Amino acid sequence: MNILVTGGAGFIGSHLIDRLIELGHTIVCLDDLSLGKEANIAHHVLNPQFKFYQMDVLQKNQLETVFKTSVFDVVFHMVANSDIQKGSVDLEIDLNRTFLTTFTILQMMKQYQVKQFVFASSSAIYGEHSCQLTENLGPLFPISYYGAAKLASEAYIAAFQANYGIQSWIFRFPNVIGERTTHGVIFDFIKKLTNNNQELEILGNGKQQKPYLYVKDLVDGILFGWQQSKEVLNYFNLGVDSVTSVTKIAELVVQEMGLHHVQFCYTGGDRGWVGDVPFFDYDLSKINQLGWKAKRSSDDAVRLAIRAELDYRKHL
Amino acid sequence: MNILVTGGAGFIGSHLIDRLIELGHTIVCLDDLSLGKEANIAHHVLNPQFKFYQMDVLQKNQLETVFKTSVFDVVFHMVANSDIQKGSVDLEIDLNRTFLTTFTILQMMKQYQVKQFVFASSSAIYGEHSCQLTENLGPLFPISYYGAAKLASEAYIAAFQANYGIQSWIFRFPNVIGERTTHGVIFDFIKKLTNNNQELEILGNGKQQKPYLYVKDLVDGILFGWQQSKEVLNYFNLGVDSVTSVTKIAELVVQEMGLHHVQFCYTGGDRGWVGDVPFFDYDLSKINQLGWKAKRSSDDAVRLAIRAELDYRKHL
Repeated sequence: MNILVTGGAGFIGSHLIDRLIELGHTIVCLDDLSLGKEANIAHHVLNPQFKFYQMDVLQKNQLETVFKTSVFDVVFHMVANSDIQKGSVDLEIDLNRTFLTTFTILQMMKQYQVKQFVFASSSAIYGEHSCQLTENLGPLFPISYYGAAKLASEAYIAAFQANYGIQSWIFRFPNVIGERTTHGVIFDFIKKLTNNNQELEILGNGKQQKPYLYVKDLVDGILFGWQQSKEVLNYFNLGVDSVTSVTKIAELVVQEMGLHHVQFCYTGGDRGWVGDVPFFDYDLSKINQLGWKAKRSSDDAVRLAIRAELDYRKHL
Repeated sequence: MNILVTGGAGFIGSHLIDRLIELGHTIVCLDDLSLGKEANIAHHVLNPQFKFYQMDVLQKNQLETVFKTSVFDVVFHMVANSDIQKGSVDLEIDLNRTFLTTFTILQMMKQYQVKQFVFASSSAIYGEHSCQLTENLGPLFPISYYGAAKLASEAYIAAFQANYGIQSWIFRFPNVIGERTTHGVIFDFIKKLTNNNQELEILGNGKQQKPYLYVKDLVDGILFGWQQSKEVLNYFNLGVDSVTSVTKIAELVVQEMGLHHVQFCYTGGDRGWVGDVPFFDYDLSKINQLGWKAKRSSDDAVRLAIRAELDYRKHL
């Protein structure tokens, strides 16, 4: 297949491209390299089945050239502001990078009659609920701008599906970690402990528990859902059925860094920052019933991600 | 109270202003007059408690002048593209007029610390469901761009509420009719029958049934909910517990115009146009339990709207 991957030099996008190329597909990768890195796709540049354009997809003229040049079977839209905290300071970031890029890509797909759309959504669309997060849960009141921009994107995907028949797959991710990540709690802890290996400040009370999904499992789940589910509008929670607390992450980082006697200092409260969800119970039965489960547990994913980050830092 | 009404010269906004002025509030009305009309607010211009600025709220500099000049207790955000069919042809209309105006107003409220926000949402956010439409229904996959833009707005309202404590009221309207409407099925039928009083083309099979809420009842419901419900984020379906079919509307129009022997020609199919929802069962128990019910039935609302439109045309 001829596949467009937007945000393809980013954390998740680049892992997706690795798998799609292994599977024999032809890839056009777009990325403005604001969060993505050339290093993430450097191993493909000599492959004639792979093309990279450095491009902001909101630049419609440039984007249109790509759609004019290639006939795509499917678009995997991975562009987004992945930094929730940054988005809570500058509200235009999620609006532009996460929502308006989706709208623009869908418009282009309509114009050039591309038939399939795969979208990276988020568990953040659900907001705070005391019940289990199933795909059909309502009401949907996200508490972060990140979640709001993802929900706004889903709303438009549904409308484009209904009006132009663009078959769509929406995958709602929890926290995803692994090689090539650019931010997040593991990243922060390693940075802090590199500067000071005696003491570690932990936002909140450390008891926030979340499922951490290993990025290669995530990519596996996306491709599985895309191939196996054939509704006109497909939507799935993707995740892992175990969780890791913030304190546990801190302990694993300390362990993997070979440190001893590190004192944990908690800032207190039940969440790390405004928009952070202290706990959630993520229902995976829909994707499980289709036949998919993550291979690594949340703790394993955290450990793999720590090792990858430490390894990366060794080669800097 | 000092109240900002955006879209205040429009169909619903102007009725809202009529009531708010009756109740003794001070009003600043913004409208770009693209759908709104000066005639709708002409009876207030000499009132020192009322100020009108012709303005596109997406023009941030102009908008900021208004927030700098007045300290508002609450914003009623009524700006929207109300023409669903037009929005399905030019996709930027709902994006700009419905969604981005909401985002821009919320940003300004955050900056100037306005504490209360009242939003005109829509039953269109629910998309197609075979079950009753309750406020907590999911998933939310709107089938029109209009519904998508309203859902995108709700998503951001929730995030602004969570991050900046802006207390919000979301009212989801069904079809609203009455004096000063600018489009819709009644409007279309009267226009067609004025041109040809022998024959009336009806889109679909005429069996689509919807609750039509009289605009003055709607305004009554909005103000009731705003005054009686005091959560940080309040959300209600507003409507009427009866429905009117398209054929019934045609019959009422024919009757009120004093016509005879009009032949109805149906274009066929179960919906009038792409994005139209053929039938819905709208749950009103939440607002009913708070103590509010519409005074007029759907058929009465249709008849009142027909008379208002015929009366308006007499004075052209």
